[in-house]
Formats: sequence, structure tokens, C-alpha cells
Amino acid sequence: MVMLEAWEGLKPDRKAVERVVGALAANFGNRLVTSQAVREQHGNTLTWIGNQPPDAVVFPQATEDVQRIVRLCAAERVPVIAFGTGTSLEGQVNAPRGGICIDFRDMNRLVAVHAEDLDCVVEAGMTRKKLNEQLRDQGVFFPIDPGADASLGGMAATRCSGTNAVRYGTMKDNVLSLKVVLANGEVISTARRAKKSSAGYDLTRLMVGSEGTLGIITELTLRLAGIPEAIASGICPFPSVEAACKATILTIQSGIPVARIELLDTLQVRASNAYSKLTLPETPMLFVEFHGTEASVAEQSQRFGEIAQEFGGGPFERATQAEERSRLWQARHDAYWAQCGLRPGTYALATDVCVPISRLAECVTETQRDIAANKLVAPIVGHVGDGNFHVGLMVDLGDKDEVARVHAFLERLVERALAMDGTCTGEHGIGQGKMKYLPAEHGEAALDTMRAIKRALDPLDIMNPGKIV
Amino acid sequence: MVMLEAWEGLKPDRKAVERVVGALAANFGNRLVTSQAVREQHGNTLTWIGNQPPDAVVFPQATEDVQRIVRLCAAERVPVIAFGTGTSLEGQVNAPRGGICIDFRDMNRLVAVHAEDLDCVVEAGMTRKKLNEQLRDQGVFFPIDPGADASLGGMAATRCSGTNAVRYGTMKDNVLSLKVVLANGEVISTARRAKKSSAGYDLTRLMVGSEGTLGIITELTLRLAGIPEAIASGICPFPSVEAACKATILTIQSGIPVARIELLDTLQVRASNAYSKLTLPETPMLFVEFHGTEASVAEQSQRFGEIAQEFGGGPFERATQAEERSRLWQARHDAYWAQCGLRPGTYALATDVCVPISRLAECVTETQRDIAANKLVAPIVGHVGDGNFHVGLMVDLGDKDEVARVHAFLERLVERALAMDGTCTGEHGIGQGKMKYLPAEHGEAALDTMRAIKRALDPLDIMNPGKIV
Repeated sequence: MVMLEAWEGLKPDRKAVERVVGALAANFGNRLVTSQAVREQHGNTLTWIGNQPPDAVVFPQATEDVQRIVRLCAAERVPVIAFGTGTSLEGQVNAPRGGICIDFRDMNRLVAVHAEDLDCVVEAGMTRKKLNEQLRDQGVFFPIDPGADASLGGMAATRCSGTNAVRYGTMKDNVLSLKVVLANGEVISTARRAKKSSAGYDLTRLMVGSEGTLGIITELTLRLAGIPEAIASGICPFPSVEAACKATILTIQSGIPVARIELLDTLQVRASNAYSKLTLPETPMLFVEFHGTEASVAEQSQRFGEIAQEFGGGPFERATQAEERSRLWQARHDAYWAQCGLRPGTYALATDVCVPISRLAECVTETQRDIAANKLVAPIVGHVGDGNFHVGLMVDLGDKDEVARVHAFLERLVERALAMDGTCTGEHGIGQGKMKYLPAEHGEAALDTMRAIKRALDPLDIMNPGKIV
Repeated sequence: MVMLEAWEGLKPDRKAVERVVGALAANFGNRLVTSQAVREQHGNTLTWIGNQPPDAVVFPQATEDVQRIVRLCAAERVPVIAFGTGTSLEGQVNAPRGGICIDFRDMNRLVAVHAEDLDCVVEAGMTRKKLNEQLRDQGVFFPIDPGADASLGGMAATRCSGTNAVRYGTMKDNVLSLKVVLANGEVISTARRAKKSSAGYDLTRLMVGSEGTLGIITELTLRLAGIPEAIASGICPFPSVEAACKATILTIQSGIPVARIELLDTLQVRASNAYSKLTLPETPMLFVEFHGTEASVAEQSQRFGEIAQEFGGGPFERATQAEERSRLWQARHDAYWAQCGLRPGTYALATDVCVPISRLAECVTETQRDIAANKLVAPIVGHVGDGNFHVGLMVDLGDKDEVARVHAFLERLVERALAMDGTCTGEHGIGQGKMKYLPAEHGEAALDTMRAIKRALDPLDIMNPGKIV
């Protein structure tokens, strides 16, 4: 810990950075870029956390390239930050101490598909949509869908999830093995391709969610699912957020294997109606989807409809046509853009927390009251089957008082989630933005354990420093 | 690593052990036991790995007791070994350097059930059968079933799984959070009760499968499943292991959410017929089970029957009565006892490997050939949906040549699994018995990473030393 503290906030020696950049230029030619514009694009750009660009950006083409970069940086104690598509939301790609950004743009190959084993191997820069396009004709798909067309390396690094997680799990459940370049430049495979193993420490799960602070993911072996024979989607209005949450709980308790169950609060429905040209009733709404055989999705839909009715919801309208289904889910994925339309000219800020599902209605309802009491504009959407929800805050950055109210609101949101045995982030990760909440969430002893692991694997603190611990 | 090597094989100072035992006696009275018989019961007893008893056994009643024990041991650098029910198969509970065994017999309470959240909190000594008895009237159950009525702390420590894993996952998927006493006596909670989180390193998964070498689990928050509305079981004969494996692959690829799919080879069927008074045809056999609604299990059964037929298997006979179903699964669980009956007076040795499912038929068939060529008696049963299978070796320990052939066979079995991108153990763990295979499975760099984590969390090497790394 002393070592980290002594190093905290220190910028690497400028001369050392220059030597590394020089060596990288000699090695990588025009795959090394130092222009101001490109460097700024590789710092945080999506949220109100400031932009902290790296000193240079390098585009490797193979794991061996990444090893060379890390070794050069380690020798000069210069930070290394991995970059996928830059869609992380808590400043994960920022370079607070400068350093070298490794952009995986050119490492985007599908290395192997093992359809019989329901797995595939991809390079870290492959994006999820591109992967699914390439898998489609083999009857399999990769189910994790965080909305953005993120890179799979970044998705693993932030332990992301999204709408399908209620059925298919998160990245922690869908990564079989990782190829990782360690801080000393050595490369490891975290596991074999067997579906399960109890052979030693679970390095796979340790790397998933470590946000590039313990090693750099260059290749992933991913679990796939068979493309379902039938998919049924639909929407269901509810009189209250509480009724929608209670219907969700009973749906899951009843063992209905719902594939997606998404809550939109009234304000979000209004925003989506306007942006996506829908005509939904302006009341809390569940968007749901079922995967299975024709008979099974019909049965699931019917049972869900009955449960909804029990809580005063409904009617459950099933979108039978593929186009209609796509339009609904496009509207759900466009929730962010719809939010922006609610208050043009303001800044849209996305945050997430996750609580045990039994506390979700209470957490969302209290949060809505807090939003109203503080005169904020902030629709809520949620992966309600997991107890995970997002608040989209439309902030007038020119209004200092409003900015202060938003800051205080974000603190209370996390406190509220933690008080309900929840977490400060269900799927966005810690990055820089949520570091301050970790002591309250985990306690000092657990956080010290994380720090001890960080020091053990990255004694020079060069791997994405200034994040998580 | 130097530190571990210097310490390797060293027994703690006898005087130090005596001081710890004295202090424990003063603290725990008759909950500290040092009799030879009890100490031997707490070393390995189930397999042919020798019995290495601890110096004393202590029975804590609360996490604070465990903290006191660990602090006393840490101060004197005396090993600490956690003990559940002693059913581990690779020498996990042995005390090669002596030390204090912590038996969780008296920490067996169900602390809380959150039926709406589908989770519960238990003390580490609770066994899975007892838990399910206590949960039954709430409509939920804990699905992991390793056969033995093991303690849940031990099940998490070895990352166990069993027959239901193909549908419900392994312990890694069904532990939400752990309370762990660290090597310095501090206690941590590894996570909140939220269903998912991306808040920092995944300490839960790091502890699951660490076999007490990184910390001692005292309490677990477990994921539960709703008791299915309908259960359908049945048996299906196949002309060959290959046909049975191919039917399994297609079943899973087709998205049939099979809850259990177990292979018994011809020799195992013969053994089970004799032991469990069944009249199954003596040919490879799949035992399967489906969970869901009445309509859904009927559909799953029908589809499975069709797939079986496609590969020359069948007829698929559904056990419609609960008693008939129980009798079948009892026979599956009694496979070990049935094996013993094949060659009375010999020693039964259980081992497991796991390979990608596409390689399973090949791996099992080659293993059967190896068994025959070496004149061994060794039936095979497998959690075939996960590519995991067990070989039960009936060994005449008095026959030195046979013992040598068994040793060589076990080496080849692991080499075969590794060559197929599999693992040396799917669910039994490493303990002492499989340490020698880890360099081949993970490579030195990954193993060094595990060692670095071990040193960071247990610098004195007192937590179950001599296991895994």
C-alpha cells in the first residue's frame, strides 16, 4: 500500500515517456500516433469526467505486439491503458498519469468457432455486433448486449451485462478463458476450453471486471448460445413501478426463463414515444422477451400475461412480427437518445446501481421522489430482472446549483443502494468515477485485499493506474 | 516464491504448536480435541492419499471464533486447515505440516432466506441436504448436488458441481457472496447481495475453488432456484458411448434446457444393475432429467427422444412416478458403491477430468481402451452435458504391478484430457493429488500468478499449506 501511495498522483518521468514513444515509433511505424486529436479521442469522451489523454496511441496486430509494448513501458515505468471502443462510462480509458494507450482496433479477428462446444475464440478488439454477424449462419450467438457495440475485450474488462443478463448471465458467466498480457510482459491463458474446471484459482473471473488494472486482455474464449427456435417479445403497462417490479419478481420465482425484462418509467416512456415515434400509454412499462420453442414461448407469454394481470398490469401485447419486435428493442436501445430529446442542449449523464430484486421497487420509487424533490430531469430504465437500473440525468452544466444538486443526488443514489445490500454499479464498473464508493461498499479489509492483489500482479503500478483501487 | 520454497516441507516449531494448542484449550475448552482418533478422522480418509492428521481439531461456533483461531495460529506461524464433512477426494483436508483443523460441524445454521430474491445465507458447516430440507416449504432449493452430503463451505472451497451443473452451473455460479476470515484474522464480505455487480475485483470467485489456501469461508450467500413445477426423468440406452455423446451435444445445441444428463458406460450399468437391483440393458446409458412446466417437460422429453433415435439410441423411457424417479437417481448416486461391488476387497479410487464436449466421446473411448489394455477394472460415469467424467478404479493395493499400472493410467488420463484442451479436474479440485498436473495445465506464468496471489494474501503460508500452489 505504501508503494501505491508513494506513487499516487505521480506522473512518469517525461524523459522516460519520450524514450518509450521513440522505441514504439521504431517498432510500430505509423501504427503509433501522437497527434493531439487522436490522443484526446482515446481519453474519456462520453461522460462529464474530464478528458485525460494518453501520451501516445499504438495499434497492435497480435498478442506479441502487446507484449512488446508492455515490456517497453514496464522498463521505463510508464502507464499502459487498454482501449476497445471507448464506450465505458466511468472514465476507465482516461490516462491521469499519461502513458501509452493500446487500441485494439486492428485485433478484431474471429479466431475459431467451436459450434459443437458452443464456444468461440476472438481477439479483444472484436465488437459484439460484428461477432454475431459472423456467427449467425452457424446457428449460435453471443448473448451479452450492453447496448453499445462495444469490444469484447472491453466488455470483459468492465464485467458488463445488459438486457439479456437475466437469462444468459453477465460477462463473468460467458467468458471461458482469457489470454492476458501481464505487467511483466508475460502472457497467460487463464483456463482451458473445458466448460468447467476446479483446477486452481479462478484467474478468468479475477481478470473479468479488473478494468485493465491487473493485465491486458488480448484474446477471449466465449460461451455461445444456440439461436432460439422462437422469440416472443411484448410490452406490458403497469399502474406503478411497484406493480411492475412485483410482477417481475413473481415471473422469475415461477421459473419462467424470461430472456429480457426491462422497466421504463413514465418519463422514459414519454421520451421514447417522442423519439422512437411510439404511442405507448404514459405509465410504467415492461418490455419482455421469451426464447424457446414455439410452444414454450407461447406458454411463457401466457403465464407472464396472467402474472401481470395479478398486479393490475396489462394487457400484455405480444409483438408477433420480427419487424415490430425490432422496433420495440430499437426503442429500448435508443433510450439514451430519447432521454437527450427530453431537454435539448443539456448534458446526458448515465449512472447505474443494482439492488436485491425485493428492494428494487422501493429503490426506484425513492429515487424518483429524490429526482422530483431536486427538480431534476431524469428518466429511469432498468434491467429489472437483475435488480439493476439506470438513471439518465439531463444536466444543464451551466447551472452551478443544478450541477451541485446532481452531485448530491448521485451520492444519495449510491448510499440508498448500499443501504439495501446493493452495489454502487451493476454493470458500468468503477473506473475513476466510482472509486470513492468502494470503501463503503466493500469495507477496508476487502479493499485492502484487492490492493494486495493489485500490488502482487502489478508491483510498478503501470496497468491502467488510478482506477478501481 | 522464494519464501514459499524456503518454507516448503518445513513443519512448524513444536513449541509453537504447543503454545497454540494451549491457548485454544483455554479459549475453547472441550471444543478443542487432540485425541489421536479424532485427529486422524480429520486428515484424508477417503482416498489412497495417506492420512496426515492435524495437531488438534477445534469446533468454532461463530465467525469470531474462527478469527481468534486464525490470529493465534498466525502469531505462531502454525497452519490452519478448514474441514467440512471430509468428503473431498484429493487430500484437501490433510495436514502435511501439522497445524490446527477448524471443523465447521457446529456452524450449520440457516441464517436467512430471501425467497423473493432467490437467495439464502448459511453458515459454512450447513450441508446441502439439510439446507434443502429447511428450504422445501418455501418453494425454493439449492441445486448443486455433488453426490455426497457435503458442507456448503467445502463445496464452495473446492468449486464443486455435480449432476445439475449442466443447467444450474457450478458453485462459482451459485455463490453470491462469502464471509471469509483472512490469514491475518480480518474478516471480509466478498460482495453485496445484489444479483450482479461490477464494483472491483471478483473476490467471491477468487475464494471459490481456492480450497482454504487464501482464506477460510465461514458464511455463504447462495443463489436458489424455484422448485420446478414438473420434473421428468428417464433413461435411454445407446449402441455406443459415441452415440450417447453425440445425442448429448445435439440436445444442448438445440437449446433443450436439460437439468441432468448422465452417462453410464456398460460396465457401470452392469455394476448398478447388480447393486441397485435394476434390469437395464447392458449398454451405454443416459440418465436424463427435465425441469419446467408440465407442457415444457413433455416437450423436452419428446424432443430428446427424437434426438436419441437419430443416433440409434432409445427407446427413451420416462419414469413418470416420483418413486421410480428417485430409484433411478439413487442408483446414479450409488454408482460408487455399485463399483465397489464389482471387485470386492479392492480399493475404490475416484478421479475426474473434463474436456470440451466435442471431444468427450473420443476421450471416454480412448480411456476405455486404455483400461482394457492395462487389465484394470474401471467403470465410467459422466456429467456428460459438461464434458466431465469420472473413472472409478477398483485397485488391488496388494498387487504392486497393478498399482503401478494405475498410477501410469492416471497420468495418461490427465495428459489425454489436457491434449484435448481439457482440465485435470472438472469438480474434485487439486488438493495434494493433482498439484503435479498444474504446470502442464496452466503453464508456469499462470501458475506464478496464482503463487503471487497466494503470497499476497497469505504471506506466512499458514492457510492450508501444501495444497494447489
